[in-house]
Amino acid sequence: MEPSRKKTVELHQAKWLIEPGCVLLVSSGDTKKANVMTISWQTPIHTANPFRFLLVMRRNRYSYELIDENSELVVNIPGEELLEAVHTAGVISGRGIDKFRKCGLTAEPSVKAAPPRVAECAGHLECRVMQRIPVGTHDLLICEPLVAAADPRKFDRHWITEQHKTLHYMNGTLYGVMDRTISAATGEVD
Amino acid sequence: MEPSRKKTVELHQAKWLIEPGCVLLVSSGDTKKANVMTISWQTPIHTANPFRFLLVMRRNRYSYELIDENSELVVNIPGEELLEAVHTAGVISGRGIDKFRKCGLTAEPSVKAAPPRVAECAGHLECRVMQRIPVGTHDLLICEPLVAAADPRKFDRHWITEQHKTLHYMNGTLYGVMDRTISAATGEVD
Repeated sequence: MEPSRKKTVELHQAKWLIEPGCVLLVSSGDTKKANVMTISWQTPIHTANPFRFLLVMRRNRYSYELIDENSELVVNIPGEELLEAVHTAGVISGRGIDKFRKCGLTAEPSVKAAPPRVAECAGHLECRVMQRIPVGTHDLLICEPLVAAADPRKFDRHWITEQHKTLHYMNGTLYGVMDRTISAATGEVD
Repeated sequence: MEPSRKKTVELHQAKWLIEPGCVLLVSSGDTKKANVMTISWQTPIHTANPFRFLLVMRRNRYSYELIDENSELVVNIPGEELLEAVHTAGVISGRGIDKFRKCGLTAEPSVKAAPPRVAECAGHLECRVMQRIPVGTHDLLICEPLVAAADPRKFDRHWITEQHKTLHYMNGTLYGVMDRTISAATGEVD
């Protein structure tokens, strides 16, 4: 059963939660010891059956240690209203503090994964980390969702920009806001 | 010397051209035989010294063949005004046709790389492909810029959303438009 207001998103549609290239709140750990961090470096790598994406994470992160323990994480998609929480979660470490509390975010139990969801976010991907590929100081974390969910008022096969405005990292304290949706005249991208 | 209106962007600042997660027009080949395709699946993987990013490309693409020949590509950053060209470049193959012409785009010589730039775009990253990592049906192309450039009226350490609105792929024929920039109250993201 999905927590309040969220509905299950079929996994072959889950790509569209992150495809716009928005910043993500990534939760790790479990209900006893959880962390959350902001990640801008993400991309899908396989469309469906299975849908897979990757996160780029520096190996010295506290979240990296927690993911090392149970190979699970939850991707949460924040909207414009979470700007300050998103930025704070990107600049401070969760080592030795309750970062959810520090950021004013609520940890709620996931449906399948050990790490909690961020209740304030409009969509979630509960994931298993399938593979880690080292590149320089970072690892590419190859993730496969176990379950996905979103607020149906904000997401219906794509983000409804009138209801949910994703954040896109620009530089320093600046974020771009995806404010508007336009349609090309014809054709479908493969 | 940079072509008209574009100024060199220092490589330690080049990340900000693609960091928002926008769609890219990727050109390949050389001045005799060039192609261009739309890519939404991209992310930085290393900030600077060197800045590196990755593109996710299906191995059966014509662009993949061209990149195989000289290990170079040019990333061009389109704005909202190029919506139809972006979408067309994403749905048709360049095999056997002049895709620049088909999309109404202009190939102009690059400064260092063999593939041409897309003249209509506001920024460019001329790149060497350093490594290819196979993942399923796609390869992760690890790219390092040789030179970067942007229109200084549209980019100054970040995209100026009043002047340049990046496109973000949403689903089907739909694209999100990054219309607005907001700032968090304090702090710098590491």
